[in-house]
Amino acid sequence: MTTELRVGVAGLGTVGASLLHLLETRSSALAARCGRSVRVSAVSARDRTRDRGADLSAMAWFDDPVALAGSPDIDVFVELIGGDNGPAEDSVRAALATGKSVVTANKALLAKHGVELARLAEENKVSLSYEAAVAGGIPVIKTMRESLAGNEIDRVYGILNGTCNYILTRMEQDGLDFSDCLADAQRLGYAEADPTFDIEGNDTAHKLAILTSLAFGSQINSEKIYLEGISSITRADIEAASELGYRIKLLGVAQRTDSGIEQRVHPTMVPKASAIARIDGVLNAVAIDGDAVGEVVLVGPGAGGSATASAVLGDIVDVARGLSVPTLGMPAHELAPYKAARMRMHEGGYYIRLAVYDRSGAFAEIARIMADEGISLESIVQRDRTRTHTEAETHGDAPQPVILTTYETTEAAVKRALGTITARNVVAGTPQMIRIEKLR
Amino acid sequence: MTTELRVGVAGLGTVGASLLHLLETRSSALAARCGRSVRVSAVSARDRTRDRGADLSAMAWFDDPVALAGSPDIDVFVELIGGDNGPAEDSVRAALATGKSVVTANKALLAKHGVELARLAEENKVSLSYEAAVAGGIPVIKTMRESLAGNEIDRVYGILNGTCNYILTRMEQDGLDFSDCLADAQRLGYAEADPTFDIEGNDTAHKLAILTSLAFGSQINSEKIYLEGISSITRADIEAASELGYRIKLLGVAQRTDSGIEQRVHPTMVPKASAIARIDGVLNAVAIDGDAVGEVVLVGPGAGGSATASAVLGDIVDVARGLSVPTLGMPAHELAPYKAARMRMHEGGYYIRLAVYDRSGAFAEIARIMADEGISLESIVQRDRTRTHTEAETHGDAPQPVILTTYETTEAAVKRALGTITARNVVAGTPQMIRIEKLR
Repeated sequence: MTTELRVGVAGLGTVGASLLHLLETRSSALAARCGRSVRVSAVSARDRTRDRGADLSAMAWFDDPVALAGSPDIDVFVELIGGDNGPAEDSVRAALATGKSVVTANKALLAKHGVELARLAEENKVSLSYEAAVAGGIPVIKTMRESLAGNEIDRVYGILNGTCNYILTRMEQDGLDFSDCLADAQRLGYAEADPTFDIEGNDTAHKLAILTSLAFGSQINSEKIYLEGISSITRADIEAASELGYRIKLLGVAQRTDSGIEQRVHPTMVPKASAIARIDGVLNAVAIDGDAVGEVVLVGPGAGGSATASAVLGDIVDVARGLSVPTLGMPAHELAPYKAARMRMHEGGYYIRLAVYDRSGAFAEIARIMADEGISLESIVQRDRTRTHTEAETHGDAPQPVILTTYETTEAAVKRALGTITARNVVAGTPQMIRIEKLR
Repeated sequence: MTTELRVGVAGLGTVGASLLHLLETRSSALAARCGRSVRVSAVSARDRTRDRGADLSAMAWFDDPVALAGSPDIDVFVELIGGDNGPAEDSVRAALATGKSVVTANKALLAKHGVELARLAEENKVSLSYEAAVAGGIPVIKTMRESLAGNEIDRVYGILNGTCNYILTRMEQDGLDFSDCLADAQRLGYAEADPTFDIEGNDTAHKLAILTSLAFGSQINSEKIYLEGISSITRADIEAASELGYRIKLLGVAQRTDSGIEQRVHPTMVPKASAIARIDGVLNAVAIDGDAVGEVVLVGPGAGGSATASAVLGDIVDVARGLSVPTLGMPAHELAPYKAARMRMHEGGYYIRLAVYDRSGAFAEIARIMADEGISLESIVQRDRTRTHTEAETHGDAPQPVILTTYETTEAAVKRALGTITARNVVAGTPQMIRIEKLR
């Protein structure tokens, strides 16, 4: 363990450049902490000429990341290419197959091929580390895989996408519409030109797929995750949430239930007093409910070159120190296939916003339909009743917003009730429905 | 690594009993996660007959924990005795000297003998783990020692004592006096019969001493920590803090400054919007400012048998998996002696509460004394001016509370100014002074 650790880095974008910088400026501190020096010996990226603020002259250059991964001149391979196939997948496989530990920030790759790659790492007696893949700089993987290894996890949930959280925070704080906040996020570099992957929850789902496996010792299957993004959230919802004592956050939630493991990504009403409600802007947070520890909440930067590089470097230090933990917390063959709970079985409170034709009896009809499905209403408010009478009159027959909240019920009952309400022609458009999460 | 890990546990109080319970009920999950079975083979405690809710019949009993620690029939020694000398120290030394890894929850022992014990562990090529010693179930040791190993830490601070946080929270939420809240804390089992160690900050200082070493790669010296407890905090301070937009928390803070490393434990004004201000009741929280990651905040239960046992078990899992990290993050001989910054050099804002004799000119005199010391006042408020005139008149010559807050200045200047003010006989009693912490 006294020999130098030679690091090969594939992908020199923001994270890669930050990593090179850290490894250069910290070399003596890292040597003290690892008991050996850690040096980038080779790199691979698309463009050799781009200035990355780091001196690459002492590093071997590979045009092909797969060739870098298989090179005998590196001891650990760092994959920062991205994507769940192509060069990212090929190079990770090549590195593991040739007996090198791998450090990656690639959530998509793990979500798709995690169990298989874990098996490959085991067969070759090397480690596959991916702290940076979930919640950036927050040490959630190590916490779940190591610190809380003695706990039975009941639920893990979190704000795992900074773009969505930034948009929802701005909508609330500045009273803006979704589209304006998205445009701002794009202008500030928090959102991609094509933001679909973030705002529709796919990115959160990839991260949740990994956390689910760690929490429940199960295989990974991001296809089983119920997915609903934030693009349908309006200012009216944000305002109503606030009046009801909630904030709206895009949560990823994995939870053990009687009917299987629930995995869901959707806009969620969380009580204002909860820790998770107070996570603003691009920050991420993960809460882990363990039977022994209670609830542990980890908060920090979920993205950004430097914070992500911090997590990658933490994994490299583990490799340098000779620490190796099974990729998903236990041997790959022991990871159990799991029964995914159907979303219709989900139990919880619901917020429902309807545009009701202001006809006499509409309220009563809605309440009766809810009662017929066994749904207890916690509140029902016609929001615009606070307007002056004159204003209300000018609306004529225009539909009026009505906000309902329910006590704990099932998703199936709510869906049936909303179907009936829509069919009865007492409401305009599609009802809005947001789940309320029960938190400590 | 396929052989069983035999655990010896010394000390079977609340934490020890929880640990036995977890190890028994989790044995198959732990075996899967560790790749080997983990079993308590021997225990030691004062009273052999007490019912601990666990079957001890298959475990060897030792009256003497030192004999247990030295026994060849255990592979890892868990010290839950407590205290910085006597059987706790002797047994930990005996275990390390006979080549066994040690897991302990003993902050006092680490704060006093940490570096020496780290050296002993290294010499014997075993590990000394102590996740449970700081902030109970929160994985702060692993986070600092491993996850953030690539960061240069600028500051680490936190709420590290649940008793104090419970008292301060109750004082604020219920408008109670310190002594009433302390009595409640004792009744609920959150505070010892002799609470001095908690409320005067010694417990926080032990934990901070350990965090300081991890943050700065320095030796441990809890004697160098500036210490001030919460017993002087009054309802008047809590209320004034709230009006000024702050909460009062007992923080432990270790910070790199130009004049050395500051280590201080004292009641602190923190902005209401900060993450740390929102930690209520017996919860603990630790914030770590790293140059690469930014700020990471970890929140969770800082005490309690089950949460503490969760942390102890996490350390045992590390041992079972064959993971070993230098006790304090780097080899003991590389831990640097450090220059402790003198408290007089501390820079920050200050809150000052004075009981001013309501004489004309007193305000002006106080303001002039402050100005003479180069202290800029941010606000100065005579709190009881809101009373009715009649009420004020009945006070006659009684001293009136005046609250000052300052912009950033030095502790030395504030102390000098308060000395002058006291000497001039314009105030009654001793001025109250609470530091304001600059937070993100």
